[in-house]
Amino acid sequence: MLMMKEARKGHATEELEAVAREEGVPIEELMANVAAGRVAILKNNRSSHRPVGVGKGLRTKVNANLGTSTDASDIDEELAKVDAAVEAGADAVMDLSTGGDLDAIRKAVVDRSPVPVGTVPIYQAAVRTRRSGRGMVNMTGDEILGAVADHLRDGVDFITVHCGVTREVAEHCRRSRRLADVVSRGGSFLMEWMSYNDKENPLYERYDELLDITAEYDATISLGDGLRPGALADANDAAQIAELTVISELVQRAREKGVQTIVEGPGHVPLNLVASSVELEKSLCDEAPFYVLGPLVTDIAPGYDHIGAAIGGAVIAMAGADFLCYVTPAEHLRLPDVDDVREGVYTFRLAAHAADIAKGVRGARDWDDKFSAARKALDWDTMMDLCLDKDKAKASRERALPSDERLCSMCGEFCAVKKMTDVREKEGG
Amino acid sequence: MLMMKEARKGHATEELEAVAREEGVPIEELMANVAAGRVAILKNNRSSHRPVGVGKGLRTKVNANLGTSTDASDIDEELAKVDAAVEAGADAVMDLSTGGDLDAIRKAVVDRSPVPVGTVPIYQAAVRTRRSGRGMVNMTGDEILGAVADHLRDGVDFITVHCGVTREVAEHCRRSRRLADVVSRGGSFLMEWMSYNDKENPLYERYDELLDITAEYDATISLGDGLRPGALADANDAAQIAELTVISELVQRAREKGVQTIVEGPGHVPLNLVASSVELEKSLCDEAPFYVLGPLVTDIAPGYDHIGAAIGGAVIAMAGADFLCYVTPAEHLRLPDVDDVREGVYTFRLAAHAADIAKGVRGARDWDDKFSAARKALDWDTMMDLCLDKDKAKASRERALPSDERLCSMCGEFCAVKKMTDVREKEGG
Repeated sequence: MLMMKEARKGHATEELEAVAREEGVPIEELMANVAAGRVAILKNNRSSHRPVGVGKGLRTKVNANLGTSTDASDIDEELAKVDAAVEAGADAVMDLSTGGDLDAIRKAVVDRSPVPVGTVPIYQAAVRTRRSGRGMVNMTGDEILGAVADHLRDGVDFITVHCGVTREVAEHCRRSRRLADVVSRGGSFLMEWMSYNDKENPLYERYDELLDITAEYDATISLGDGLRPGALADANDAAQIAELTVISELVQRAREKGVQTIVEGPGHVPLNLVASSVELEKSLCDEAPFYVLGPLVTDIAPGYDHIGAAIGGAVIAMAGADFLCYVTPAEHLRLPDVDDVREGVYTFRLAAHAADIAKGVRGARDWDDKFSAARKALDWDTMMDLCLDKDKAKASRERALPSDERLCSMCGEFCAVKKMTDVREKEGG
Repeated sequence: MLMMKEARKGHATEELEAVAREEGVPIEELMANVAAGRVAILKNNRSSHRPVGVGKGLRTKVNANLGTSTDASDIDEELAKVDAAVEAGADAVMDLSTGGDLDAIRKAVVDRSPVPVGTVPIYQAAVRTRRSGRGMVNMTGDEILGAVADHLRDGVDFITVHCGVTREVAEHCRRSRRLADVVSRGGSFLMEWMSYNDKENPLYERYDELLDITAEYDATISLGDGLRPGALADANDAAQIAELTVISELVQRAREKGVQTIVEGPGHVPLNLVASSVELEKSLCDEAPFYVLGPLVTDIAPGYDHIGAAIGGAVIAMAGADFLCYVTPAEHLRLPDVDDVREGVYTFRLAAHAADIAKGVRGARDWDDKFSAARKALDWDTMMDLCLDKDKAKASRERALPSDERLCSMCGEFCAVKKMTDVREKEGG
């Protein structure tokens, strides 16, 4: 029985109860949002991952993209990345591998991760086609759906499928003469496939089959944005919005079958267009959970793209996005390593937390108030213990310890906090 | 003759012409804004620093705070920080030294920096008082104004003076029972001074004298926010706004004498209150240039405070702030080193640039469009040359070079940009 259908009947499943407890939200509220498809609970019914709720009224979640490429495919390195992401507090991980033994890597990641795992099955279909000596354009619809089934059978909790890249959307894109054209890997595979075969996108044409396969595992469909803007110049353009319009219909069709969906969005978006990009998704897709990459608010900052994307991420989450896909300092330069993964997760947890405070998520601000009370008391042990990244904060402080251990080497004896404590004491509290 | 008075007479000074050229704005527009006090041109008439315009219609500027503390006071290290800040593109630097030979350090920084230099003269007065064996509360009004005169004579272009911390404002603060009380060093000195001496803040009481001293050098008064919030819980509270109300009157009084002012703001501010904090300053202070620290959008992220502050900085600049004071990764932990300074400046240039794109500053988006055109063409030489931080980007890419040098090791041969180029070629352009 599907979680969405159970919620519609008023049954609280084990997963729903776990999410309500974890988030501190009333069961009835969560049940109504799951029933309406405004919250998705990421959890394949065959996986042993912790169920994670994404959507209305819940804490903003953070995903870490992992995975090998044709240039780097070490399984141990990938598992170290899973560990680093989870230790840093990622709510989900995606295995986007395209190099090495994809089946072995995916199974190992699913096995290793305590949090939900997502994948992009068309990568697997593409790699299999290439390895069988054929061109990617010769990949069949059966092969694509077969990869989906394989991934779900292995316990993948959510799959990205670019069902909205239809021939009509592709034509919009061709006519719009974008600066960066298509930058999504899955999107580019399908653009090439449709162009070469002169046929409709199998993930769109066979969407009902896709829903049936997904329903077997009560997994979540993440409707990929094959036309996400890869340059500020392309943000919120006709091609992107045309795809979102198709996706809005696919969300409704999934809900009719009780299959959970989330909608993917952003990429590169100027800061002034960030809020409207969420508002549009929420109105077009009847408040379906919005899962966004970044967005990056400038194109010119490789090496700092995690920061540019955290700026966009905080603003888009404040405006209503539910699930942030991190960007690491390696973005646009190379495959991220373990340190990049850790830095990316902490950076995005910061952005998500700032947004949760801003949008009034239950209890979000308590953390900051506790921290600031410790800072006011010059209680370094409590501060260090409450830090987002304890290890980094401790190591940084220790690089230049103050002569008075109650203070820090920034202001030394001219510490305003210490001075005000003295002033208030003299004033009698 | 003061730049503001010259502008009111319709005279284009050399500094005004330089700023108009640098920013690509019409002389008449800039002249009107300087005349009204809505743009300040940072330039002591005795310094040889490049004049920098801050305010309405201009590019968002970035300041780097430097300076020794009682725990670390190496002059060579400070000069290396000046060089790093300027190389990374800081528009101004502030020497906030409180340790070592303050006069020698300040003179060396003024001498070394090609960009405007700011200081907080009350630090000097406080240190002098302490070194003369007296308590800081015994500092006299003459000594404070004397430190201002000394700094301006040395060629400092803008000075932070906490004139708005009046006894009435202090009483607001005491009654409001803030979580973090006062966290500004200058603010805390004055709170202690007023409490102990039971007298009004000399910088407020003798504001006319302060204006006269500043006018001699045509320097800019930066009206310090002694009560800037040091915790999210204290943002936009009655104490902060009471001080801003006093400052709004001081802005008008300075304008009457033709003395340029900028207004200091933020600190720790929840993301949902960031825009209103600028709007309030702009309406209360008749669009005086707004110079803000961060703001940090969470209290819990030491080690990542440059990122939390860049989120706030981008949003506050988009909403109208004109001048961002950077925050480094060392904030709240220790005195920043040269690497922290560099990272802080680049991070804030990113935030300022994202805001400039969003608010439509002339030409801001051109950089991104050129960059994305190079990315689309897989032209790595041009990309690397256009990067915000070329050295970091190059070093990062080289850590994991792809087998095909046209690509990167993230997607390897499955690069969407390469694929789409092939698709479009086959489609006939």
